[in-house]
Amino acid sequence: MKTDIDQLMGEADLDSLLVTGPAGHNPYMTYFTGLVHLTQGYLLKKRGGEPVLFHGSMERDEAATTGLATKDLSDYDLIKLLKEADGDHIRARMMLLRRMFEEFDVRGRIGVYGKVEVGPLYAALQQLDEALSEVEIVGEAPDRSVLIRARTTKDEDEVGHIQEVGKITTAVVEDVAGYLTSHQVKDGVLVNREGGALTVGEVKRRINLWLAMRGADNPEGSIFAIGHDAGVPHSAGKDDDLIPVGKPIVFDIYPCQSGGGYFHDFTRTWCLGFAPDEVQEVYEDVLDVYETVYNAMVANTPCRDYQIMACELFEKKGHPTVLNTPQTKEGYVHSLAHGVGLAIHEGPTFSHVESNKDRLLPGSVITHEPGLYYPEREIGVRIEDTLWVRPDGNLEVLADYPKDLVLQMKDM
Amino acid sequence: MKTDIDQLMGEADLDSLLVTGPAGHNPYMTYFTGLVHLTQGYLLKKRGGEPVLFHGSMERDEAATTGLATKDLSDYDLIKLLKEADGDHIRARMMLLRRMFEEFDVRGRIGVYGKVEVGPLYAALQQLDEALSEVEIVGEAPDRSVLIRARTTKDEDEVGHIQEVGKITTAVVEDVAGYLTSHQVKDGVLVNREGGALTVGEVKRRINLWLAMRGADNPEGSIFAIGHDAGVPHSAGKDDDLIPVGKPIVFDIYPCQSGGGYFHDFTRTWCLGFAPDEVQEVYEDVLDVYETVYNAMVANTPCRDYQIMACELFEKKGHPTVLNTPQTKEGYVHSLAHGVGLAIHEGPTFSHVESNKDRLLPGSVITHEPGLYYPEREIGVRIEDTLWVRPDGNLEVLADYPKDLVLQMKDM
Repeated sequence: MKTDIDQLMGEADLDSLLVTGPAGHNPYMTYFTGLVHLTQGYLLKKRGGEPVLFHGSMERDEAATTGLATKDLSDYDLIKLLKEADGDHIRARMMLLRRMFEEFDVRGRIGVYGKVEVGPLYAALQQLDEALSEVEIVGEAPDRSVLIRARTTKDEDEVGHIQEVGKITTAVVEDVAGYLTSHQVKDGVLVNREGGALTVGEVKRRINLWLAMRGADNPEGSIFAIGHDAGVPHSAGKDDDLIPVGKPIVFDIYPCQSGGGYFHDFTRTWCLGFAPDEVQEVYEDVLDVYETVYNAMVANTPCRDYQIMACELFEKKGHPTVLNTPQTKEGYVHSLAHGVGLAIHEGPTFSHVESNKDRLLPGSVITHEPGLYYPEREIGVRIEDTLWVRPDGNLEVLADYPKDLVLQMKDM
Repeated sequence: MKTDIDQLMGEADLDSLLVTGPAGHNPYMTYFTGLVHLTQGYLLKKRGGEPVLFHGSMERDEAATTGLATKDLSDYDLIKLLKEADGDHIRARMMLLRRMFEEFDVRGRIGVYGKVEVGPLYAALQQLDEALSEVEIVGEAPDRSVLIRARTTKDEDEVGHIQEVGKITTAVVEDVAGYLTSHQVKDGVLVNREGGALTVGEVKRRINLWLAMRGADNPEGSIFAIGHDAGVPHSAGKDDDLIPVGKPIVFDIYPCQSGGGYFHDFTRTWCLGFAPDEVQEVYEDVLDVYETVYNAMVANTPCRDYQIMACELFEKKGHPTVLNTPQTKEGYVHSLAHGVGLAIHEGPTFSHVESNKDRLLPGSVITHEPGLYYPEREIGVRIEDTLWVRPDGNLEVLADYPKDLVLQMKDM
């Protein structure tokens, strides 16, 4: 949580944090600023001190709404700086950062964060590191990063945002289910009343529309993958594909607050009309592992234990997994879960590797998403909810929704 | 254009390009891959060679649709790499890049690109640079960057995408105009038939909805700023604000293709019902500068000339500008234009500084957006279109739309 930042900075031996980039679609900056219209800025925070937001002059009123201490970048006269740097933008940027550091007496180990264009910043930070003997620029590993660790546990406000997006998400999932089942079936695929075939592209357009209507953004798109595509976890589905009955459809939807805030992550696997036996069997294996692992989860235990548990349960049912068959493209091929927040994928991580020290801390918001994949057999099944590890250690599904595999077609 | 990349690499003395990050909302990667579902990958291109896309195993089918040469990252056994690196993710990433470089015989000066989390990559690239004596990692300045320079001129496909988003943009602008003027006026603000006051937040929700309906994303939000807010160029407008008649509203809308592709940038300034004389005067000054500079633009000339021309024209009309009053927050306070493409702001740049060597090259797509701002007087006016410098050197407005200041209210 934000209140942990100073302590985490101490543990990481960092004296200051430097966050760069816009306020939207940049979790590190949004974490401090909230959702405001800042296209480019810097945020400096010294250990034990309050953060200071450096903003463009045209964005001064937006910066003021953050409630943070602010500083107008035009005070540094960027045009004069660029002249002093002989028109070299990287040198000018280094000089700007040096002045900011001097003015705020920033020295020691400085962690850098932000989702930004890497090239110019890489070069400017290198020059800065070389120019200032009392400064060391530090790029932290994701699993040790102060801000990723802080963001791994959420306060109630943050959980509220994720839950709110969850309500929108499941409402849209219900819209999609209703839309699909209102169609008729002809030659094994969905058609409208005029006999026109429904496509994945049309379904996705409606998903975007319904999300926008309810106040969410969909910056990463969604997965609506059928048959063979469903068997490859990140295949998003092809716009021109028709929608068949009796084949597994993996529908994975991960919108965020309008403007680029907190995400929610959710998947259901559906068969329209009926499920072939082999899909039903795979589905029941996934649901059983979902429930067994969910019921086993206890706060403060290592996250990797649950990935290992999921692998062992799947293996007992005869499926290859990443634990017993590391490069497998069939069976259980991914991690059980990941943190969800201002980024769709954040801490904690659930990789089974020994070096993964992440724990299921109270305040975490995570996915829970076991799945099985057999692309050659045109089968993919994943069931995913977003869970909150409550401060009392109990788990809560943030947006509940039925897990039925088969959606009954009105027409069949 | 893409076909210029090898020549630009030669001019920049770069032997290879390394692009990182996802395919969406990451112009550098999208430029090569198009809009596919790749959450994380690398792209290596040697001078004179074809690019190779490195992708996660779960995204192999998406990667294949790009038509690029591909390589599955699981071939490098990332779990084994992490073990060899004693669980240090940054070291493991450096080792992965080193193996990729070795396998594809990458050496010399390597430019790095991508909109990504800067910290871990900064650290990994530094280690790589130190570990490999035959490799130099280069972060290019934005005005010299090979990929920004390549992207500055567009082929007809790219222009087609920007024009298509422009059609959606102006259609939604027309929707918004119709929506506003269909309201009634009570106590100087817009109300619906039941007498409820319309808010900026409600207008923005509809903008998002109508964009989604027509197939565009709105990742950066939009500006709908009234009175004082209109006088601060990047103030986005407050959700709770009511919509008055007779005050300038700056409506700046910059959506992109669904999934994160090409942008379009467009602004109109409206007064509902009537315009006070002083707003009308400011508006006419802006429109006059818009037209004079537009008519003066000639391909292959320096971009900064047009910013200086706009400043001098505004100064003659008695307005302060960034040329004669560098820190001014009143009058003409920004640049005339910027390139538009996979990023909403890209090359060429129009800053008046001498070090700006950008030219108005045939194939460029740029905004043209003179404006005047007097926040204390609650006045802001900006008129913006997106223009294409055609291969024959002639200018074309990519999405034409009336420039009227006053929108007649049906009710007044």
